Amino acid sequence: MKINGPRVISRLAELARIGALEGGGVERLAFSDGDLQGRNWVQNHLQTLGLEIRIDAVGNLFGIMPGREGIARPAIMFGSHTDTVGRAGRLDGALGVVAAIEVLEVIAASNWRPAHPLILASFVNEEGVRFMPDMMGSLFHAGDLPLASVLKARDANDICIADEMERLQYGGQDSLDDLGIDTFIELHIEQGPVLESLGRDVGIVTGVQGLSWFEVTVEGASNHAGTTPMDMRRDAGAMAGTLAAKLRELPALIEDLRLTIGSMHWHPNLVNVIPDRVVFTIDVRHPLPDALAMAEERIKAILGTGTGDLEVSWRSLARVDPCRFTPRVVEAVASAAKRNGLSGHRLISGAGHDAHILSRCYDAGMIFIPSRGGISHHPDEFSTDEHIRHGTQVLLDTVLTLAGHPDPTP
Amino acid sequence: MKINGPRVISRLAELARIGALEGGGVERLAFSDGDLQGRNWVQNHLQTLGLEIRIDAVGNLFGIMPGREGIARPAIMFGSHTDTVGRAGRLDGALGVVAAIEVLEVIAASNWRPAHPLILASFVNEEGVRFMPDMMGSLFHAGDLPLASVLKARDANDICIADEMERLQYGGQDSLDDLGIDTFIELHIEQGPVLESLGRDVGIVTGVQGLSWFEVTVEGASNHAGTTPMDMRRDAGAMAGTLAAKLRELPALIEDLRLTIGSMHWHPNLVNVIPDRVVFTIDVRHPLPDALAMAEERIKAILGTGTGDLEVSWRSLARVDPCRFTPRVVEAVASAAKRNGLSGHRLISGAGHDAHILSRCYDAGMIFIPSRGGISHHPDEFSTDEHIRHGTQVLLDTVLTLAGHPDPTP
Repeated sequence: MKINGPRVISRLAELARIGALEGGGVERLAFSDGDLQGRNWVQNHLQTLGLEIRIDAVGNLFGIMPGREGIARPAIMFGSHTDTVGRAGRLDGALGVVAAIEVLEVIAASNWRPAHPLILASFVNEEGVRFMPDMMGSLFHAGDLPLASVLKARDANDICIADEMERLQYGGQDSLDDLGIDTFIELHIEQGPVLESLGRDVGIVTGVQGLSWFEVTVEGASNHAGTTPMDMRRDAGAMAGTLAAKLRELPALIEDLRLTIGSMHWHPNLVNVIPDRVVFTIDVRHPLPDALAMAEERIKAILGTGTGDLEVSWRSLARVDPCRFTPRVVEAVASAAKRNGLSGHRLISGAGHDAHILSRCYDAGMIFIPSRGGISHHPDEFSTDEHIRHGTQVLLDTVLTLAGHPDPTP
Repeated sequence: MKINGPRVISRLAELARIGALEGGGVERLAFSDGDLQGRNWVQNHLQTLGLEIRIDAVGNLFGIMPGREGIARPAIMFGSHTDTVGRAGRLDGALGVVAAIEVLEVIAASNWRPAHPLILASFVNEEGVRFMPDMMGSLFHAGDLPLASVLKARDANDICIADEMERLQYGGQDSLDDLGIDTFIELHIEQGPVLESLGRDVGIVTGVQGLSWFEVTVEGASNHAGTTPMDMRRDAGAMAGTLAAKLRELPALIEDLRLTIGSMHWHPNLVNVIPDRVVFTIDVRHPLPDALAMAEERIKAILGTGTGDLEVSWRSLARVDPCRFTPRVVEAVASAAKRNGLSGHRLISGAGHDAHILSRCYDAGMIFIPSRGGISHHPDEFSTDEHIRHGTQVLLDTVLTLAGHPDPTP
């Protein structure tokens, strides 16, 4: 079976008009009017295909195509999300959902019916920009976030999700408990530069890095830059700089470690005043649990060296264990790429995704396509039409393979 | 002659009530209502003493006590300023003006009259917080800042000095051209920790450090902290950190150099985004012109190493040459301290002062008293009553010495 490339491209453009911003970019923050319009757009397509629609209590949307034996066999789920960050690109999340519609449409139009039920999933609030945490919908679906926690989450204007869900009539009452889902696959843009720089068509994602975020506070004393001798200073900026330099050495010591100091706030932040307080963050990621834990220990040891006349304290802001995707799914992606004559590259996802959360309860895997310049969460986010078509075809072939199609690629 | 210690202390408390803030601190920003009230308070004291009052075109206030021969001999000027930074302490500037009133009051009450005219000066906008530049009044007096530049200076709310001067009836029309001023002396708190840490009573200030301010901009590329491999990053924060570390080594290489990185702004300043732009400042000071110039060359050489995939650019924000005070005045201060049995310490001022500006046209010198903890520009700014009395007495004795009194300390 072959996907209809122009149809996928045109649907992506159509979805990008929902929440389109003046001057470029798309904005469909979770639980906003634009977000609901995006979900309704997907729902309309599922209805046109004659699928059973379900919406759960947090607003996750599902479209169900029963198998040859109804729902007796384990179901295969695939999809992504349609919410976005502020002033986002058109592909993050949207690609995975539009491609999933295409997969179901191609199969529906064929004479073949899979033994396994197929489920399109569009998870709510993957981005976590307006309401924390991110990956909220998949966390709820995986049983890792109670409904009550979702409903009481509040945005910066102190509006809670419960109020927005009531205003928008956003939530449903449907359960998927009757469906024995055992697999989840997600097509997504890479959001990084690796595939483009290697000139590969398709990323065969073998897992997702774990991450650990620290917030570090260095406290010294604020004094006059002109009158305070160098040996009588308690310069929080200098100490933060020394710590940051040691921290930035860690990726050279621990293979595959990614460490970023992305945020630094100085106080009082004046040209002629020695800073008395600097707060900075550390974002550290690794695909292996032991290596991530080792990096965390090294970080704490480095922060422990920042004593003397200054106080260094830290707290954990977030922590997510790494995951490895299921070989059965990873190999289905690899063989799908190969059968289509596409060059594949095995890589670890640097960013979090719904598939990471769902790997806790299902056999999971992901397909990446190249992102130009590695740019995402920005109107400049871009993948070529060719890569979009290839990724969608690989998703179709992977689903067909996992669903037991005898010859997925003609 | 002896100063009246309790009168000085009580007048400082009285002046501190003008612009006193709830919760502590004083605020008399230049060309504000509080600033005018502070100047009027000084002017009332000068009138009570029967002195001739002059106010020049920018609002500098002068009180003139003619000498035995009228104004035939060169005049000796002393004073400071009564404007403050935001939420300031009670002593910075105010001490020098209140002590100058005391000096004139003690001499006026004595039978002795100096050969030289004595002039109390209270210069406007020394702090430069609301309207730049700082030391505006002394710069105008020294002929280094034209009236037109003063009048058109604007604050953050786009209000210009000309408007404020008209609203407050702040400026005058008086000139001091008929007075052959040749000397300026300023009593001030140290605003640094040196005298306190050495346990000395009086600072004999031998000069003022020169300073040079740089603003450095590092530009890289903003990318996802999770998806961007370490070797594909253009991390502006890491580059700024490397440059800052090299810059902070300079004081160990150039004796008496003070270097401060006081301000650093990161963009976009998010935990999981590699910073694409970091802007930081360098404040470098040295008492010797050649050493300051050498430090500036070293700084530019270090900034020149910040190439690779990132762009490093810089501009000068400010530059002031060092000054050395006149030996005649410095030794008058030293002998005044000695005659009063006070322990003196020769030091360089780390901060700028009106005396620094006036050293360009007059023989100049300064007297410091200890600042507890080196703290200034803050409500916690503090000097003991004893140190305030000692400093005022040294100012009186220095003026008497310079004015030719045969036996300044009885």
